[in-house]
Amino acid sequence: MMQKLKNPRLFGTALSALFGYTALSATLGAQEYGSYEAFTESEGFALFAVNNLWILMAAALVFLMHLGFATLETGLTRSKNTVNVLFKNCWIISIGILTYFLWGFNAMYPGDFNGVIALGSAAGSMGLNLDVGLMTDAYADYTWWGDFIFQAMFAATAATIVSGAVAERVKLPAFMLFVVVLVGFAYPLSGSWQWGGGWLDAMGFYDFAGSSIVHGFGGFAALACVIVLGPRAGKYLPGGKIRPILGHSMPLATIGVFLLFLGWFGFNGGSVLSADPLLVSYVFTTTALAAVSGGIAATVVSWGVIKKPDLTMVLNGFLAGLVGITAGADAVGTYSAVIIGLVAGAIVVFSILMFDKIKIDDPVGAISVHGICGIWGTLAVGLFSAQSFGIQLVGTLSYCAFAFLFSLALFSLLKATMGIRVSPDEESQGLDIGEHGQEAYPDFQLATRSGV
Amino acid sequence: MMQKLKNPRLFGTALSALFGYTALSATLGAQEYGSYEAFTESEGFALFAVNNLWILMAAALVFLMHLGFATLETGLTRSKNTVNVLFKNCWIISIGILTYFLWGFNAMYPGDFNGVIALGSAAGSMGLNLDVGLMTDAYADYTWWGDFIFQAMFAATAATIVSGAVAERVKLPAFMLFVVVLVGFAYPLSGSWQWGGGWLDAMGFYDFAGSSIVHGFGGFAALACVIVLGPRAGKYLPGGKIRPILGHSMPLATIGVFLLFLGWFGFNGGSVLSADPLLVSYVFTTTALAAVSGGIAATVVSWGVIKKPDLTMVLNGFLAGLVGITAGADAVGTYSAVIIGLVAGAIVVFSILMFDKIKIDDPVGAISVHGICGIWGTLAVGLFSAQSFGIQLVGTLSYCAFAFLFSLALFSLLKATMGIRVSPDEESQGLDIGEHGQEAYPDFQLATRSGV
Amino acid sequence: MMQKLKNPRLFGTALSALFGYTALSATLGAQEYGSYEAFTESEGFALFAVNNLWILMAAALVFLMHLGFATLETGLTRSKNTVNVLFKNCWIISIGILTYFLWGFNAMYPGDFNGVIALGSAAGSMGLNLDVGLMTDAYADYTWWGDFIFQAMFAATAATIVSGAVAERVKLPAFMLFVVVLVGFAYPLSGSWQWGGGWLDAMGFYDFAGSSIVHGFGGFAALACVIVLGPRAGKYLPGGKIRPILGHSMPLATIGVFLLFLGWFGFNGGSVLSADPLLVSYVFTTTALAAVSGGIAATVVSWGVIKKPDLTMVLNGFLAGLVGITAGADAVGTYSAVIIGLVAGAIVVFSILMFDKIKIDDPVGAISVHGICGIWGTLAVGLFSAQSFGIQLVGTLSYCAFAFLFSLALFSLLKATMGIRVSPDEESQGLDIGEHGQEAYPDFQLATRSGV
Repeated sequence: MMQKLKNPRLFGTALSALFGYTALSATLGAQEYGSYEAFTESEGFALFAVNNLWILMAAALVFLMHLGFATLETGLTRSKNTVNVLFKNCWIISIGILTYFLWGFNAMYPGDFNGVIALGSAAGSMGLNLDVGLMTDAYADYTWWGDFIFQAMFAATAATIVSGAVAERVKLPAFMLFVVVLVGFAYPLSGSWQWGGGWLDAMGFYDFAGSSIVHGFGGFAALACVIVLGPRAGKYLPGGKIRPILGHSMPLATIGVFLLFLGWFGFNGGSVLSADPLLVSYVFTTTALAAVSGGIAATVVSWGVIKKPDLTMVLNGFLAGLVGITAGADAVGTYSAVIIGLVAGAIVVFSILMFDKIKIDDPVGAISVHGICGIWGTLAVGLFSAQSFGIQLVGTLSYCAFAFLFSLALFSLLKATMGIRVSPDEESQGLDIGEHGQEAYPDFQLATRSGV
Repeated sequence: MMQKLKNPRLFGTALSALFGYTALSATLGAQEYGSYEAFTESEGFALFAVNNLWILMAAALVFLMHLGFATLETGLTRSKNTVNVLFKNCWIISIGILTYFLWGFNAMYPGDFNGVIALGSAAGSMGLNLDVGLMTDAYADYTWWGDFIFQAMFAATAATIVSGAVAERVKLPAFMLFVVVLVGFAYPLSGSWQWGGGWLDAMGFYDFAGSSIVHGFGGFAALACVIVLGPRAGKYLPGGKIRPILGHSMPLATIGVFLLFLGWFGFNGGSVLSADPLLVSYVFTTTALAAVSGGIAATVVSWGVIKKPDLTMVLNGFLAGLVGITAGADAVGTYSAVIIGLVAGAIVVFSILMFDKIKIDDPVGAISVHGICGIWGTLAVGLFSAQSFGIQLVGTLSYCAFAFLFSLALFSLLKATMGIRVSPDEESQGLDIGEHGQEAYPDFQLATRSGV
Repeated sequence: MMQKLKNPRLFGTALSALFGYTALSATLGAQEYGSYEAFTESEGFALFAVNNLWILMAAALVFLMHLGFATLETGLTRSKNTVNVLFKNCWIISIGILTYFLWGFNAMYPGDFNGVIALGSAAGSMGLNLDVGLMTDAYADYTWWGDFIFQAMFAATAATIVSGAVAERVKLPAFMLFVVVLVGFAYPLSGSWQWGGGWLDAMGFYDFAGSSIVHGFGGFAALACVIVLGPRAGKYLPGGKIRPILGHSMPLATIGVFLLFLGWFGFNGGSVLSADPLLVSYVFTTTALAAVSGGIAATVVSWGVIKKPDLTMVLNGFLAGLVGITAGADAVGTYSAVIIGLVAGAIVVFSILMFDKIKIDDPVGAISVHGICGIWGTLAVGLFSAQSFGIQLVGTLSYCAFAFLFSLALFSLLKATMGIRVSPDEESQGLDIGEHGQEAYPDFQLATRSGV
């Protein structure tokens, strides 16, 4: 950070040796600059810089979504499981970024690929300073590392969605292992079908920022896990009565949703993959319109159906609208975005009530928000743009079915081997004490402590 | 988000058809590019891209202010009204963005305008993909949608200010309706007097980012509502005793103020309406200096006056400094910014104590922070720059008086018709149970539950 | 914010007079533009604008770290000291920015400098609108004010680190005075040794974003203060037993760490001092990799050592990785970043346990995270890049020793004069009541209130 003394764009000599600009210059491909330094002096560099900067800012915004997921899930579950929820979210972002670095990124955007399974390779070669491939040769709107960090933030999202659905009863080591395989292997594998130029892309499927590829995937992985895991103790009582299990902090839940809303500007806006003023601005607009329309619809519908203006439903309505617009944020009209959001906000209320009725216990509504509204958003592209509805249907079902079956198999295997559920005693006492020996709020008098 | 395979700036063919670039090219006006694609290849495009990117980032920062307002208001009120506070804030951002899309934006920055009342028109024409006017023809620093989303985030702010002042006793449906009219009609109407080039702009009034247009407006709307609504039960006791009603979470209040401080970099910085390095950097600096000076002054003054270093006062001191610098962030010197902040931080302490004395019950201090310091900030431009003090006075009084009278009339009408206040029982029990049938912290033992 | 009516880049006439562009044009140095306006029309301006924009966004991200520190420290201490913790953090950011404006910035990046002590001068000259030096003449990647606000956000960080270590027993006025001197004098003084081009820079020391200059400095200042101050009452019991004193809110602590993680993208990424796509993207990547590697290592090590997956350790593991990579984020390979993070995450667990064993009572682990891992990160540059290990050792010890000795002397002086520790009664009752007469959570039933 020394300044006023040298021009940072010239780099230190040590650094330029480390990066090996000679090797780098060979990868600049179509640009045909003699070296990166020559590129920095060229006419197109300023635009390249702003495009790349936006990818990085978008990566930061998507990172913030992980705090959003963590606080939302914490707020919507009981205080006795809070440490566990937070711990899981720390693990997911860690493993998500690291496995994506080690294998996922190069597998999802593959060199070595048969259209279905991408083999990929590790990022960079093992060694202290031999970071090759700092920039790809096939596009010029951002750097290789800028792209990597943006996509890595995405990768962890799928697993985070599952985390909320299995909260309050899943065994920690089993979940940690599940995450490694899901985010490290299944997500890049299926992601490459579309974003890696695989068979779905070849068919003409369109999923701009991942209503299916990320959210549908996560939601249906969650559904499989919940089926294998079963509902929380005391949720479904004899005689068909459903006991509401309330989340312990509405401020945390609301903070979570606002952070997710904010982060979605990076999730969708960054998926333009450049700072193109027209497209990014437009995507910001459709994203915001769908989100608030989802919130308004959920307000109205929940007021009508459950006879009160329910905050949790409104929060899920925002998310439903956001998931809904994700597939077509750049491809549908603004009024279409409003309609997509309104429909998503209505769907999510009914879907949450429906899953509760059929005893699929999802504490945060993740299956409805990400799974069902992910399908809706993907199909909406077929309704509100020139895309083929049939192909959209094939695409979204492919992602949802793959995620469901893969998770069903993996989680069943984990159940059969190491066990996936904490003991009834531990579930009753809370996972914070049981798994972590730690309370989230030791100073506060909790109702749950006195046995409620 | 498919990449490495095509250049995103070239768009898919379907998409370019949807946007209708042929029509678009006609609106580029002075730029005279053959098409948007030609513009993207031109020399000025990189600067356009960075300017537009900053508007979008600023919009994201102003969005975050809504989370700031939500957590601040939550923290400064009692736990039994938390769900209600959060719900109102969800509604405000939703309605703020949607009404601004449907009418407000085109009304505030008008085509059809007599200098006082802007008629405006809906954004885009109804239809799936006929989004005309993606870029205006009169300026070239950002796109039409980039501008829209930035201004839409502003619009909701005025109503949010009112929300805090009427908290803990306002009836939900009445407040929701009030918000729709205030943010959907009154704000764009009066905003156009200055930012739409109306009569105040013609007179030479200066209000850079809205000390009067946004904050004074919101603060005096809040004052009117509080007068119509009356104080919270138990606040002003017989014999002239004032009972302090404490907020339930200082961490939430502090999170709120830090987020507002952060967001203000977008609120003020984005109001430069370009990424102009000199001006935006300067505005960041004056904004930060005024904020911390406000915090320091409030620390010192509250310590002197109420004999303790009061956290709530310091938090309001930050906000006071921020509101104070908003009108002149680009027009006053840095030492002037410090002085403006110091004065604002002192004013807000005395103002809060004064309003309490005259039984204007404002749970969060919104009238003082936004109303009184909004006036101060607007007048300060007349003191610390070449602007006319007299015209500044006329301008700020116009906004404050309009907001006050409009809100007085509207809220009185709502009082006479649907009722604006919850029942004494509901107020005592809390609005969370009364309006929403939902508690914010069901796991925690609350003092309020045992009747305190 | 008036738009569509004039080009903001042309400025109002009043404004251009205030800024005195005639004077400004003389400072543009090597650029040799006739005026700022001419510069805005030149070819290099777009790149200048994007570089400057990134500095500003980075400043905003570093600002957010102060909210991260505030919530982390709040979460890891007891509820009875919450108002005090939040108040201290408000003070630190206020004083940090203001003193840096008045003296620090010009002292740290000096004109008048003998290599050891920078005399500096106040920012701008006293007067309403005479803000000279809006841009320096020695570099062209960002504006003078853009640089100022970025560095000002850094400055306050050192003091924030101390705040956590002395929490729950330090006397407020003494700490407030300590902060003024530390951040207003000691930090710019020692910072200039390296970043101002002083003796350490001349020797070839490398500390990219401040593992030593900021974090080591803060961590060892904290160590000195804790030694002078002593442990919290009841922490070290007779017979050598160590009583764990638990933090009161794990969600707040986690929010803090995620915000710090996010802010670090600005802390490290902004230290590139331009938006250079290659370097900033690379720094984002190494920063994220080291952070999550630190989290993973802390998970594994704490599980092995203390036999449970400890959330607090994982959170500190993230921070350890971040501090560790700060010195070499632009200079080491990506696999090196992973190793640096893993080692930091392991170090921090053992360091925290070790300091507890030798009765250095640091409630948040700041000495281990910032001090010990700051040394590790600085030395790692000597291990994983071409830098000299010996010079790195000299540099880091210089910063740590200076901060330690300076703080030891200053805090001892404060102890001898005004007193640095609250009374045992006040400590037992909590500093919120004792220093502020205010509770953080008046609605909640607290265990601490019943004497625990």
